[in-house]
Amino acid sequence: MIHFSINKNFFLHALTVTKRAISHKNAIPILSTVKIEVTRDAIILTGSNGQISIENTIPASNENAGLLVTNPGSILLEAGFFINIISSLPDVTLEFTEIEQHQIVLTSGKSEITLKGKDVDQYPRLQEMTTDTPLTLETKLLKSIINETAFAASQQESRPILTGVHLVISQNKYFKAVATDSHRMSQRTFQLEKSANNFDLVVPSKSLREFSAVFTDDIETVEVFFSDSQMLFRSENISFYTRLLEGNYPDTDRLLTNQFETEIIFNTNALRHAMERAYLISNATQNGTVRLEIQNETVSAHVNSPEVGKVNEELDTVSLKGDSLNISFNPTYLIESLKAVKSETVTIRFISPVRPFTLTPGEDTEDFIQLITPVRTN
Amino acid sequence: MIHFSINKNFFLHALTVTKRAISHKNAIPILSTVKIEVTRDAIILTGSNGQISIENTIPASNENAGLLVTNPGSILLEAGFFINIISSLPDVTLEFTEIEQHQIVLTSGKSEITLKGKDVDQYPRLQEMTTDTPLTLETKLLKSIINETAFAASQQESRPILTGVHLVISQNKYFKAVATDSHRMSQRTFQLEKSANNFDLVVPSKSLREFSAVFTDDIETVEVFFSDSQMLFRSENISFYTRLLEGNYPDTDRLLTNQFETEIIFNTNALRHAMERAYLISNATQNGTVRLEIQNETVSAHVNSPEVGKVNEELDTVSLKGDSLNISFNPTYLIESLKAVKSETVTIRFISPVRPFTLTPGEDTEDFIQLITPVRTN
Repeated sequence: MIHFSINKNFFLHALTVTKRAISHKNAIPILSTVKIEVTRDAIILTGSNGQISIENTIPASNENAGLLVTNPGSILLEAGFFINIISSLPDVTLEFTEIEQHQIVLTSGKSEITLKGKDVDQYPRLQEMTTDTPLTLETKLLKSIINETAFAASQQESRPILTGVHLVISQNKYFKAVATDSHRMSQRTFQLEKSANNFDLVVPSKSLREFSAVFTDDIETVEVFFSDSQMLFRSENISFYTRLLEGNYPDTDRLLTNQFETEIIFNTNALRHAMERAYLISNATQNGTVRLEIQNETVSAHVNSPEVGKVNEELDTVSLKGDSLNISFNPTYLIESLKAVKSETVTIRFISPVRPFTLTPGEDTEDFIQLITPVRTN
Repeated sequence: MIHFSINKNFFLHALTVTKRAISHKNAIPILSTVKIEVTRDAIILTGSNGQISIENTIPASNENAGLLVTNPGSILLEAGFFINIISSLPDVTLEFTEIEQHQIVLTSGKSEITLKGKDVDQYPRLQEMTTDTPLTLETKLLKSIINETAFAASQQESRPILTGVHLVISQNKYFKAVATDSHRMSQRTFQLEKSANNFDLVVPSKSLREFSAVFTDDIETVEVFFSDSQMLFRSENISFYTRLLEGNYPDTDRLLTNQFETEIIFNTNALRHAMERAYLISNATQNGTVRLEIQNETVSAHVNSPEVGKVNEELDTVSLKGDSLNISFNPTYLIESLKAVKSETVTIRFISPVRPFTLTPGEDTEDFIQLITPVRTN
């Protein structure tokens, strides 16, 4: 029966990371537990909600963990409850002792807490993956790609495939991430330093956001593996599995064009704040839009929501070239796309009032491009 | 028609304070607006939810306000919406101009926002109060009294009078604040420096909590006035009105006694953390309790919730004298009462397993006393 002692805060932190995969209200009740596997030289914490699974290893070799295993074993404990108990313990270390009938006793300072656990046999088995040819990416790069694309995925289940981010490696070196909800699209590309296996898969955007929360910036690189049905992100101590979405992702390449009639460079934050003001008023009307008027070297934004009021604002530009144009769109899309842009300026290129317009950061190349569809107004 | 200019952040702050009295979902729709009265030398912002009302004055004499009134007048504007708009404005100053049909135009930087307002005649009139004999109190003292008592008031409307805090001045100098939900009681007394009019009234605990949020620590003193139906707290710029509760408050003095059999002094935080651990387990059972066992110079806490587990913990004490005793109670009450105690130690005095026990801070006198009723167990 299990017996170990460990640093309370280290254990708590590892549990909290694992908890990100665990939902309190799961249709499968056993998935509200955390699986604790204790071996002679490590503790492996596993959490899963059926969509994502996290395996978090605490090695005895890590001095900060203060882990001393006297006896190995496995048990399931109600995750949220167990974490609250651990965080309440009075001392810096805790002793974890399994007793009869899957009960455990936590001892810390003068406090002794007995909890009921469950037999580990009840826990579903995670699907195994072959991990022979890793694709190694910088965590920071992967998280920035997620930040630049995942928000543009659909929130609605009417077309499930659009709730994912389309990840592609082609010609063993071109990486592409793209998301669209059919109103806007965001695409990030880059070229791999080493050649890698091609793939073409769709990852739920929610899983990618969880990945970003779990893999903190101190984890420098992450290994990526995939099978037909799942993907694995792995660092030294954390394995993060996510299911893939099934189905064909629409062809987004055909939406991109180099053609444009009007090109404006804005200060990113100034444009975003102007759109946030426009949104406050446009939001009062269902499907409210903002209208950009480009003419005589000036750009202005206009909203009219008959019930509450209107906005008229001249927008500062860094540069403006091309034809006059009036175009209307949902300011939310532009606000969200500007939030994903980290550069000080943003270039917006228009073709016509009825064709999508593109955003690219600063003076950059086209490795990060977004596209927003206008709304036809009369 | 109104016309003024003002510092945006100063205006925003004053609006945010006033907004505390304004509820978005009020049964009386007009109460979701803020009343803006502009005179030659001040702006008065009024908000009310029918229970509390706040009048916040921005004097033109305050240099930080940057207030310049060109034309006076009054208007009503949807409070939450208006505050969002003000906070979104681009420049440090804004110009507020009333145009036809109760519309206003906000100009700030290159942004021009037009909003629809309402005729001020639709706003209910606040009940007037005579303010000839103020009782002046330190804001800090008043807020600490509220912090020490309001939490013990009832949250349930079954006995409305218990949702208030009973405030009494007797013999023109003894101030008493007391709250009870019939399971626990908290009482704070002190002696006034100057003689004051006697009163005996019951203020909704919710109103007092709002008072604490509105009167920040930079407001040194507050004048208190009362009538049969309402109470007014007034500082230089803020008037805070609250309705009083009607009915007779129960006699709580008879509950207090100097008699006790066992007296223990605890470290306040250590006891609170032990009770928080106990609560995590007791909370799993409906009406779960913690049992204190006092015997042979030791005090221990015990919880047994058959479905989830148990706690056994020896509690550190600063001192212990008197008889052995076993007593059970809801740990929530003790946790909340310990949160209200600011001193490092707390004295708890027990009479018997079935009589309420008292808490007093540190070595203090009895000017802050709390009382918790035990639960009979078999």
